[in-house]
Order: sequence, then structure tokens, then C-alpha cells
Amino acid sequence: MTVNPDYNIRVDLFKESPTRKIDVIKEKLQREGKDIILLSTGQPSIPPPKWAREKLSRELLEESMRLYAYTPTQGRKTVLEAIKQELEEHEVKLRDKQITLTAGGQSALYATITVLFNEGDNVVVFDPMYFGYWPLLDYAGVNVIDIVEDIKQGFKPDLDKLEEITSKKKIKAVIIVTPDNPTGRILTRDEAERLASLAEKHGFYIIVDEAYRTLVYEGEHHYLYKYAPGRVIALNAFSKDPGIPGWRLGFAYGPEWIIQRVKLVVQETVYCTPAVAQRLVEIYLSDRERRRQHIEKVKQVYRRKRDTIIDEINKTLSKAEYTKPHGGMFLFLNLEKYLEPKSITAEQLSLKLLEEKGVATVPGSYFSKHYKHALRLSFVSETPERLREGIRRLAQLLEEI
Amino acid sequence: MTVNPDYNIRVDLFKESPTRKIDVIKEKLQREGKDIILLSTGQPSIPPPKWAREKLSRELLEESMRLYAYTPTQGRKTVLEAIKQELEEHEVKLRDKQITLTAGGQSALYATITVLFNEGDNVVVFDPMYFGYWPLLDYAGVNVIDIVEDIKQGFKPDLDKLEEITSKKKIKAVIIVTPDNPTGRILTRDEAERLASLAEKHGFYIIVDEAYRTLVYEGEHHYLYKYAPGRVIALNAFSKDPGIPGWRLGFAYGPEWIIQRVKLVVQETVYCTPAVAQRLVEIYLSDRERRRQHIEKVKQVYRRKRDTIIDEINKTLSKAEYTKPHGGMFLFLNLEKYLEPKSITAEQLSLKLLEEKGVATVPGSYFSKHYKHALRLSFVSETPERLREGIRRLAQLLEEI
Repeated sequence: MTVNPDYNIRVDLFKESPTRKIDVIKEKLQREGKDIILLSTGQPSIPPPKWAREKLSRELLEESMRLYAYTPTQGRKTVLEAIKQELEEHEVKLRDKQITLTAGGQSALYATITVLFNEGDNVVVFDPMYFGYWPLLDYAGVNVIDIVEDIKQGFKPDLDKLEEITSKKKIKAVIIVTPDNPTGRILTRDEAERLASLAEKHGFYIIVDEAYRTLVYEGEHHYLYKYAPGRVIALNAFSKDPGIPGWRLGFAYGPEWIIQRVKLVVQETVYCTPAVAQRLVEIYLSDRERRRQHIEKVKQVYRRKRDTIIDEINKTLSKAEYTKPHGGMFLFLNLEKYLEPKSITAEQLSLKLLEEKGVATVPGSYFSKHYKHALRLSFVSETPERLREGIRRLAQLLEEI
Repeated sequence: MTVNPDYNIRVDLFKESPTRKIDVIKEKLQREGKDIILLSTGQPSIPPPKWAREKLSRELLEESMRLYAYTPTQGRKTVLEAIKQELEEHEVKLRDKQITLTAGGQSALYATITVLFNEGDNVVVFDPMYFGYWPLLDYAGVNVIDIVEDIKQGFKPDLDKLEEITSKKKIKAVIIVTPDNPTGRILTRDEAERLASLAEKHGFYIIVDEAYRTLVYEGEHHYLYKYAPGRVIALNAFSKDPGIPGWRLGFAYGPEWIIQRVKLVVQETVYCTPAVAQRLVEIYLSDRERRRQHIEKVKQVYRRKRDTIIDEINKTLSKAEYTKPHGGMFLFLNLEKYLEPKSITAEQLSLKLLEEKGVATVPGSYFSKHYKHALRLSFVSETPERLREGIRRLAQLLEEI
């Protein structure tokens, strides 16, 4: 790339997505005919339910512009109503202007951060955190204060520490992901209530990323919004449920004055969200009972896979540390005891594992400044047998080095 | 909306899309059972060809994640290759990193403006200009210099004036839309060459919006890029051809160092572009002959409609000024001789026309600081009979006031 100072150099803070590097090597190996076990991808392995796809499939044959037309930026009324209705069952009550569709979760992140933050604002995050946030916070020019979540405490957010920080200085917002990517940790009701009351007391906002809210294996998802409706902006996606990550549809809800501006940013960045994704989600949400059945089926499959990967880790990696994920798609595996004595980083291990053993993972360092010897393992896309095989190859490699 | 200074107030420069106001009134009237003649919409009236929809329709029934998965931000290789191949027929030769997909034309606009401009940069635009640019330029904080295009000269860009300006001060970029929205003017080869040579000579960039490039009724589209490849960033969309405005797919091409950064902005705003739109376009572009037939059919229909609206204007609005649009979907109708003597603005007329006569249009003032008595009329979405009826009702209203 030619260096040319004649542009907005701040965009260089937007580095290429770190998982892209892994994908490039993976694709090269696959072209060479190598079979790769995918523990790297944040992608569901089950497509949307067939009945919903069938209906959309039929509508594609109609001679009408209906399916192809622009929609309002906020989204089709029927989609918005269906989402609001579902949230109401969880005691999240929204007025019309408190919700807007976004072009996937990323668009919700980008728009919310653009609206809320000014340069120099203090923003508290919990480490490890989904890698997508780091470049956006850099670009916004905010001051990031990270609180490390202890793997031995199940990655619980340290709210005492948060209270200490917020008592000392003005905090603009706290960002939290629940169910978490990359740890699978979910907030308890007590934690949700305490976090919300701290926000009210100290006047900060909570950006809560709920992209995995319907994938909870034990316990339940607690909606932060209902404990502090004036302070919580919730970000969501339809990527994981019903499973259309590439179709780019998500939504944000929260205080009207914020959401109306989030909508304006979505308008200026993409004009409207993909109409075809809105239609599929509209169909999907219209049949509550079949949706419930689909989610149950998906959870059953993913839960079994999670149990399989844990079983294999317990068998073959006795010195590894992890916390059983209660939601989401990932397990965060700390291999410090294997790697630290040999001064091997997670990036080096992840690369070796991919090139020599054909297993793709994401280094934990993409999510954390603290955990330098961890890997994020996705347990949803491979079969139970291949999950076991992936862990066995990892164990082999750790013995060899 | 509660006023709260505790946010990034620059986003308030992103006002709601002006056509949205018209849509709200239009929808209200339609709910009341009123039949509205739509001369306001920038939407094609013909869906993508059936053979392409049929193939996608079948693929929706497959039990695979292929159609739903994330894609690289830049886009699927097959789509990028198909676009590059087509451009090469027009002597636009691109290396792999000189093109990236975007989430529709808007996403290409947003990303390019974000990458290229710093606060205070001088940017030349031609008035009238597509309304989508104004808020983005406000947000970027650039200094906009507008050159009025004379309706009597067929809205030709005044390149003498441009040369005068660029000789006097440092210009960062020129923005031009061809075929134009709202005027339907297309650049001649001489104009394209001269504009490109000015860019080379004075070191400014050209952002050329080619969203309507396949909808040319007389003459041909001249690709600015080939005359100044280091200086031209071209923005495109699949909204008009094959007709999927709501599916949000477009692309940008130009110098690698710019396009690679445009890609990063697309990555951070939407992660990737809609996979389902990529797939439909992949199918559509794969059959060159059937695509050519589809475009010919569409152009024939639109050309006939254009001729109809012009015929009716000539019959009933003798004092109106316009330039015959040689491309695109719109006619820009100057009603100064009717409105100026009565001190009626285009907004007032447009509103009256919608509420009293059931005809939706867009006031020219959304596109222009100069033309205060014009309307933008879309000639593609209504039948020829209803186009005539719309113009007759406009003529009636002008007589009444």
C-alpha cells in the first residue's frame, strides 16, 4: 500500500479483522487439499428452519418489487413489532422510537459508539472482550479502562473494582457482552441488578451486547435494560438466531434520544438494512411455537457439542484452565501452564496448530491484553467426533513442543 | 427528542432522509385509501430476471450454511471477478485490491468520504446533486464549493469554472454523478477526458457516482477511471441493475491505497456485505447474454416511459423547463415561471400536489441551493397512463394556484 498522507489517517486504526489472517492461511491449506478442523469460526452450523426458508423461496418467484424495495431505515413495522412483542415477554417494554434495525451486530456497535462517545471519554470494558470492539474504541479516541475477568472466578465481572473506578472518575460507559464472546460467561441476575444500579448512581451508560441471548444452556439471560431503562443500550443480531450471519441484520434498543441517533448513523452508512433479511426474520418471528422448537433443537445440538469438547479437554489437557460456557458458541482455554514455561505465545501456538495439525483456532490475545496464552475454541461448527480430534491434536502439539 | 449534550453532537448533522418526510405523508394518505401516483421514488419497477430468482429460490431449500455464512469484507472472489471482467470490456482494468464490495451505494459514499476527507478540505460539487451527499459532506466538515449546472445548457458541468477554481486554490476532490440523479445528464467523452486531465494537472481526486451506468438511453456511459486511474474513485450499486435496492449491494473501485481503506470502513460499519445479495448478483452476472437481454428490456420500458412523461409535459406545461434525461430514472422539472411570480416554493408545491392531487414528487431544493422552484420526477415506477395523469394533475394545480 502506497503511503499517502493526503487522507483521513484515523481510518488506519481500522485494522483488518484478526480472524481474517487465520482464514487466509486456512483457505490456502484447504486449496492444497488439507482437511481443516474449524474451531475458529463464530458461525452457527445450522441454517434457519426449513419452513421459513420455504416461504421466502416461494416469494422469490413472485413478479413484484415488494421483496427488493428499500425499507425505512428503522425497519419494516411488522419486524419491529415482532421483536418488541418478544422482548415484552422478558419485561423489556419499548416505545416505537426506542428500537431500530441495524445491518448486523457490527452496524449496531459502530452506530452506538459513533453516537455516544467523544474523544477522551472514559470507557470501562471487561477483558477478555470480543475483538470487534477494540478498533472501534481506538477510532473513537476514548480512554479504555479494562477490568480483567478472572478465569478462576468463571470470568465474573469484578463489580467491586468497577465501583471503585466509577467513584473516582467520571465514566461515560461500560461495555459488557452477555452471553459472552469469547468466554461463554452469562451475567447472573444479581450482577445485572448491581451493574444497573451503579449506572444509575454514577450516571454512566451500559452498552450490552446480547448477540447470543437466545443461546443459553444453563440459567437464563437477564435483560439489563429493564433494571436501568434510561442508561442501557442493548445491541442484538439475528446472526446466531435464526442463523443468518452473512445476511446482516441486527437491532439496537434503548433510550429514544440515543436510538434515534443510532438510526441516523445506520441511514448514513447503509441507508436501510437488507430487505430480504428483514423478510426472512419476519417470517421466522411470526410463528412463535416453531421458532421456540427451532431454538430448542439448536441449543440441544450445541450443548451436546460443548459437553463433548469439555469432556475431551478434561481427558487430554489436565493442565489447561477453562470455565464451562453457559451460553454462546465459545470456550476460552487458558494454556498458560503449557506455554509460559516455554515462552510460546498464543499466536505462535495457533499458527503451528493450524499449519502442522490442521486445526483452526483464534488466539486469546485478540480478545485480551491479559490472557496471553489462551485460545478461543468454537464448539458449534464441527461434529462431536471432530471436536474430540481437534482437542487431541492440540494435546499432541503441546506434548511435542 | 430530549436534548442531551452528553454525546457526539456531530451526528445531528445526519438529518432524516428528506424523502422520508414525503413517504410518511404518502403512507398516511394510502392508509386512508387514497390512490397515490408515485413520481417520487428512486426505485426500479422491474424485479431481477426470473431465471436468476429461480436459481436463488432453489438454493434456499438446500440444507447448508453456504448461503448464510459471513463472506470476506471485500466480497466473494467470484462476484469480484465477474465485476472486474465486465469493467474490463469498458477498458477499466483493475488489480484484485482495487475493488471492494459495499453495502449498497450509500455505504460506498460513506466509506469513501470517511477515508478521503479531512476537516476543512475543499470539495467541488455540481448543483443540483443527489441529496445523499449533503449530510455526509457536512459531517466530514469539508468546505463545499458548488458549481451550478445550467438547465439551459443541459446541466453540463461547467469545466471552465472548475479550472478557474482549481487554478486558484487547492481542491481535494470533485464529486460528480453520471448518469445524473436528479437531472439524467450524462458526461460526454470530451467532458470526461477534460475532467480527468484537470484532476491529473491540479492533483485532485474525482469521486464519480456511477449507480445508473447501465441505464443510458442515448449515447454511452464514459468511465472516468480509465482517463485518470490514480485519481478516480468510482462508486456503484446493484440497486438499479439488476433491481435490488433493498438488498444493499454496491462496489467501489479506484486506487488500491484508497480502496483498501474503503474496505476497512465497510468492515467496521457492517463487517461484510449481504451474502444473499452477493449470491443473486453472482448468478445474475454469470450469464452475460441473458443479463444483456434483461438490461435491454428494462431500458426499453424506461425509455418509453421517459418519452411519455416528456410528451405530456410538452402538451400541458408549456412554461416548464427541463432537459431530456439521457440516462437514469429522473427528470428535473423547473417550474420557476409558474411559481416564482406567486412566491411559492418547490416544497410548498410538492406538499400541495401530494395532499390535494395525490401525486408524490421530491422538491428540487433537496438537491439544489440554486433551483428553488423545481421538482424531481421519477419516470420509472408508474405506467405510461399514470405518468400522463400525474403531469395533468400537476398542470391543474399550477392553474389553480
